[in-house]
Amino acid sequence: MKSHMNYTMLCDFYELTMGNGYFQSGMADQICYFDVFFRNVPDGGGFAIAAGLEQIIDYIENLCFDEEDIAYLRKKGVFCEEFLEYLRNFRFTGDIWAVPEGTPIFPREPILTVRAPAIEAQFIETYLLLNLNHQSLIATKSNRIVRSAQGRPVSEFGSRRAQGTDGALLGARASYIAGCAGTACTLADELYGSPAGGTMAHSWVQMFPDEYTAFKTYCELYPHSATLLVDTYNVLKSGVPNAIRAFKEVLLPKGITNCAIRLDSGDLTYLSCKARQMLDEAGLTECKIVASNSLDEYIIRDLLLQGAKIDSFGVGERLITSKSEPVFGGVYKLAAVEDGEGHIIPKIKISENPAKITNPHFKKVYRLVSRYSGKALADLITLYDETVDDSRPLELFDPDATWKRKTFTDFEAKELLVPIFRNGKLVYQSPTITEMRAYCAAQIDLLWDEVKRFENPHNYYVDLSQKLWDIKQSLLKEQGRE
Amino acid sequence: MKSHMNYTMLCDFYELTMGNGYFQSGMADQICYFDVFFRNVPDGGGFAIAAGLEQIIDYIENLCFDEEDIAYLRKKGVFCEEFLEYLRNFRFTGDIWAVPEGTPIFPREPILTVRAPAIEAQFIETYLLLNLNHQSLIATKSNRIVRSAQGRPVSEFGSRRAQGTDGALLGARASYIAGCAGTACTLADELYGSPAGGTMAHSWVQMFPDEYTAFKTYCELYPHSATLLVDTYNVLKSGVPNAIRAFKEVLLPKGITNCAIRLDSGDLTYLSCKARQMLDEAGLTECKIVASNSLDEYIIRDLLLQGAKIDSFGVGERLITSKSEPVFGGVYKLAAVEDGEGHIIPKIKISENPAKITNPHFKKVYRLVSRYSGKALADLITLYDETVDDSRPLELFDPDATWKRKTFTDFEAKELLVPIFRNGKLVYQSPTITEMRAYCAAQIDLLWDEVKRFENPHNYYVDLSQKLWDIKQSLLKEQGRE
Repeated sequence: MKSHMNYTMLCDFYELTMGNGYFQSGMADQICYFDVFFRNVPDGGGFAIAAGLEQIIDYIENLCFDEEDIAYLRKKGVFCEEFLEYLRNFRFTGDIWAVPEGTPIFPREPILTVRAPAIEAQFIETYLLLNLNHQSLIATKSNRIVRSAQGRPVSEFGSRRAQGTDGALLGARASYIAGCAGTACTLADELYGSPAGGTMAHSWVQMFPDEYTAFKTYCELYPHSATLLVDTYNVLKSGVPNAIRAFKEVLLPKGITNCAIRLDSGDLTYLSCKARQMLDEAGLTECKIVASNSLDEYIIRDLLLQGAKIDSFGVGERLITSKSEPVFGGVYKLAAVEDGEGHIIPKIKISENPAKITNPHFKKVYRLVSRYSGKALADLITLYDETVDDSRPLELFDPDATWKRKTFTDFEAKELLVPIFRNGKLVYQSPTITEMRAYCAAQIDLLWDEVKRFENPHNYYVDLSQKLWDIKQSLLKEQGRE
Repeated sequence: MKSHMNYTMLCDFYELTMGNGYFQSGMADQICYFDVFFRNVPDGGGFAIAAGLEQIIDYIENLCFDEEDIAYLRKKGVFCEEFLEYLRNFRFTGDIWAVPEGTPIFPREPILTVRAPAIEAQFIETYLLLNLNHQSLIATKSNRIVRSAQGRPVSEFGSRRAQGTDGALLGARASYIAGCAGTACTLADELYGSPAGGTMAHSWVQMFPDEYTAFKTYCELYPHSATLLVDTYNVLKSGVPNAIRAFKEVLLPKGITNCAIRLDSGDLTYLSCKARQMLDEAGLTECKIVASNSLDEYIIRDLLLQGAKIDSFGVGERLITSKSEPVFGGVYKLAAVEDGEGHIIPKIKISENPAKITNPHFKKVYRLVSRYSGKALADLITLYDETVDDSRPLELFDPDATWKRKTFTDFEAKELLVPIFRNGKLVYQSPTITEMRAYCAAQIDLLWDEVKRFENPHNYYVDLSQKLWDIKQSLLKEQGRE
């Protein structure tokens, strides 16, 4: 079986039939602009978080068809030999701009833009979407869960319920960027640097003659990282008392007080309060309580509101699959083409549903941040050759209800899309994952709390420049006439 | 970056700390039995479909830690050198039994059983669960969607919304085993043999001066597989008329009549009926209508009930993520250990919630199929050394309500779990994917329609033998006393 490292063939088959079609129709070199954007924030949230760019960079840099691929394609019987020959030397020669990983993103704004010859631009659609959709989904969900824990560490525990190996590995990566403290997955640590840790399974406890012996043995083996799972038999009658005994007999004599217990079933509010009391009465005030068991942002919020004495959380299936909404609906749409003389001709995709109408043309996105409050005020999508002058007041308007207008002053305008590839050459150095994580936290700090509400958040403004709005309207009129 | 083909390190970190613990406690060679089973069928269905075994076989055969892994583990500072040395020569030496891929499976019965030394048995937990959970989830969901289409082909179109590359690739594989006709994903065809096909994107249409030229060009390029996407501008005013014109001008003169149109938005019942009428009036009675756009088993069932004239379906995000229920809750639980003399000591995991209590001991599963109706009657879980004599009547009882009893006669008893590994050696030859697909269809044919209902299906019987039930009761009593 071929190595999974080259994902060139992970494309929708129609990208190849269309490519062959452009090739045979003399349109191979037609320069196109495609945007990736999404329409709805998962879970009805106020913002999403972009992730997955580093894997896209790897993919673009490794794009190539090997002889096995060419032979497979020939057997399909629909491609001309000249096109197969062309694929032999296929590589990406275009430009890509994207928002850095960890950036809060909003519906309808480009988060990645491709400018490339038609075949290349069309070809990379599936892999780009797959990666951005998956990792942005998990980053967005993870950040909700992390915020619900109000500063308590959240660890990703979901590998066994992930949708495939990358679901586990890149899900762990995305969750770390978005604020998780670590993962249970060893390979995610080795490959991506999200710190791996863990406690014990029920089977550890069952393998010993009794619970106390299982706990004592574990404390002797791992005196500095002993987290004991206390719900194999009975949390309050057996688990916590045996844990206290093991801590006192093995750890305290060595002067070690940073131990922990884990609750994995039952009522976590009740059990954590009772366990806290028992631990405190035994003098183990520094012993932490870890909780797991089908948690998500809503349950964690409720547990903490009810006064649960939980110091950290392990979150599995509801994070690693974004169970409540397991799809991030990023799309890849044609925004413009170039004529032979370098002029950019904007393209629009109309729809009966106004929310599905695309923003045409080659574009930029600015984020306006108040110099006064330090908070993000709005995003503004402009044409590629417009510049926002942030030394002067700027009037924005709602692109649907244009009479709603607001003038912004004293702000800084920052471009969100940064160059990643120029003429097929990588011009971007991915930050380390620790840097991405810090950047993500800082960018989320720019958002008002109103935008961060789990339900019915404030709709952050994403407006169009007057020039872009005018072009969109004239294209709509033109198409409406057809 | 290391190759993704070796997933040895895709384990939960606690499997390594427990392994090191067993090693240092002299329990490394303690023989254990673990079962994989699940508790609830996704979407409230009547059965699930097992998938993912072939990838587990690859994983087990390739298990090995390389020097990079050992170095990474050493840096974690919690493993003893002797254990790291042991990992250098680590391989799986135990036994595995499993149900073949494509088998309908039911809650609480073992679908895979491991017998191995403690460290090995514990170590493979995460990868086994990850694979069985993911592929069984997608196979189960895909089969629901395939059944809703009542014989019309269903293609998997979801790569761009999948959770990672394996989500796309192995999702396509599982969906093919479960009855899909093919996939849009090229690499899933190349690697796993699910036939890849596709049509065109809206961008193809937008790249040409007009829709007719786009269609005509496509028909000229692909006269034998022309499926035209007719909703870029307006389905009935523009898309269908332009498709008819292109078919008549390009295909009919060549005597080709097996063309198709694809609807990807709007009301699919209304549009398909109108389009069918227009195509028929134009004499294109053999032209097929393909539909896509956020489909699942419920929408397809409703479309067909309403008389939609759709010949085949493309299903994306709701299949490839099993959107309505994106987690398959398979678990891996200790069922028994051996003492030094080869005696098997059953183990049970109790719980406040009776549904979470495990079935102890080393077990077999029989499926009883009526020789009279040809339908599956019940599954029976027995001890490993019991044999069901299908030449005599057999009385089964409900394991929860033991007064509910039923005697079966004239049946054939078939063992579901087959040997995969013996003493670490592979003793099983995976069927081809086409064979698995045929096997799956045949096994589902054994089920009564009542079990196949999407909502509130009949609960298929999964009973315990008297001996197994007795052992379970005595363990429950013993543990209840602790």
